[in-house]
Amino acid sequence: MEPSQSHPAGGERNLKLVIAYKGSGYHGWQRQADGLATVQGAIEAVAGRILGHPATVSGASRTDAGVHAAGQVANLRTPNRSIPATNFRRAVNSRLPADIVIVSACDAPADFQASRSATGKTYRYRIYTRPTRPVMHANEVWHYWRGLDAERMADSGRRLLGAHDFRGFAYSAEDRENTVRTIHRCEVSQAEDELHVFVAGDGFLYKMVRNIVGTLVEIGRGRWGPDRIGKILATRDRQYAGPTAPASGLCLMAVHYDGVQKN
Amino acid sequence: MEPSQSHPAGGERNLKLVIAYKGSGYHGWQRQADGLATVQGAIEAVAGRILGHPATVSGASRTDAGVHAAGQVANLRTPNRSIPATNFRRAVNSRLPADIVIVSACDAPADFQASRSATGKTYRYRIYTRPTRPVMHANEVWHYWRGLDAERMADSGRRLLGAHDFRGFAYSAEDRENTVRTIHRCEVSQAEDELHVFVAGDGFLYKMVRNIVGTLVEIGRGRWGPDRIGKILATRDRQYAGPTAPASGLCLMAVHYDGVQKN
Repeated sequence: MEPSQSHPAGGERNLKLVIAYKGSGYHGWQRQADGLATVQGAIEAVAGRILGHPATVSGASRTDAGVHAAGQVANLRTPNRSIPATNFRRAVNSRLPADIVIVSACDAPADFQASRSATGKTYRYRIYTRPTRPVMHANEVWHYWRGLDAERMADSGRRLLGAHDFRGFAYSAEDRENTVRTIHRCEVSQAEDELHVFVAGDGFLYKMVRNIVGTLVEIGRGRWGPDRIGKILATRDRQYAGPTAPASGLCLMAVHYDGVQKN
Repeated sequence: MEPSQSHPAGGERNLKLVIAYKGSGYHGWQRQADGLATVQGAIEAVAGRILGHPATVSGASRTDAGVHAAGQVANLRTPNRSIPATNFRRAVNSRLPADIVIVSACDAPADFQASRSATGKTYRYRIYTRPTRPVMHANEVWHYWRGLDAERMADSGRRLLGAHDFRGFAYSAEDRENTVRTIHRCEVSQAEDELHVFVAGDGFLYKMVRNIVGTLVEIGRGRWGPDRIGKILATRDRQYAGPTAPASGLCLMAVHYDGVQKN
């Protein structure tokens, strides 16, 4: 395909990037004014040098400090039409640090916006359950070595499915008016020495996944029954939910754009 | 059990430690005179402070810089009988860095030597095969993204089973006289985006596992046929084996002491 077919002459190009990173070494996704290392900042610096102009890389999700991504999505507008998307990806990757990579890059329609066009996201949360600390992946899991009842957590997770007002699972200072979200998937599965919590939905409030996980863990260790979920949804009161699970265990697996729930 | 039952009064205690570590941040297991960070050095420093005397922690395997361990074994002799082994383990772990942990500690017979008493070792080597670089575990795998024929590698691995003179797979400057070793297991298996090579045997020459993996990869990518294994064993000539695979992919999984091959 000619580049000109996917980005008509005269207009700006709009590149869609799928990005993976290990968040441990970054103060989150979002560029910060004070020069702290962020994933967005690292990519923009490299992309700008390659494109020959200051670049803005707009992500679908502002992942917090220490949160990882296997499938963050961003878009980048540029008047530069000389470099094919694949070459751009390779050039960026060769200059990025080892803990960030552009998984794919392609020309997208002009109206594509990584954040606004998204119809859903899938997250995975890893809980390492052996008593011995996880020397190989300390920054990729939550080390929780007291006993957890995975079946009880799975039952509780199913109670989150569907459309609910998730204000009780949001950051207490959440200021969005509409806090109704639809959860398509909330599964707890055993994977060797770990429990994995997969959560997919049409959108998430700030800290919502980590608060869901923190609540499931409180239920899994026996402090509350699975009916706690109904209470948090009904009261919309943050104080009934569990503590926020650590950032290290969370990974943004995919951003969805087609309205079809893929995983 | 009373501590005195497992280490008779009057003699020194001999503690057996099972140790896991991520080797990326260390210049190998072995203590170095010039103060470089090593795993042995880190544990000895902490153990010495807890026991109240300079401690020597003798490992079964001198893993190289960047090599990991899930089940390194070491022994430590001490006249200190006041601290039970479990409390010692907890005290050491609370002071060790996050990438080293004592998995277990127990009193062992006086004649136990982690290195000399060993009857076998099991290693695992991880090859990450997707084209995109592994941001989450760059230091735990060998990133090899050209195609590898796993079945062909597995076939070649089986040809290493049994007692052979492995000089051709050793470091070229290997100066041990007896280079005959017995391999009990050499398996290549697919695990999501990775190929895992498990190698177990009664002993290993310096760089032997990494040279085996480097050779299997040359065969897997089609440069040589599986009969190359026979040629290396027959000629005992290092120049016929493949390049040494990177340290990052290697992990010492277990050290065996009973003559029975466990895994």
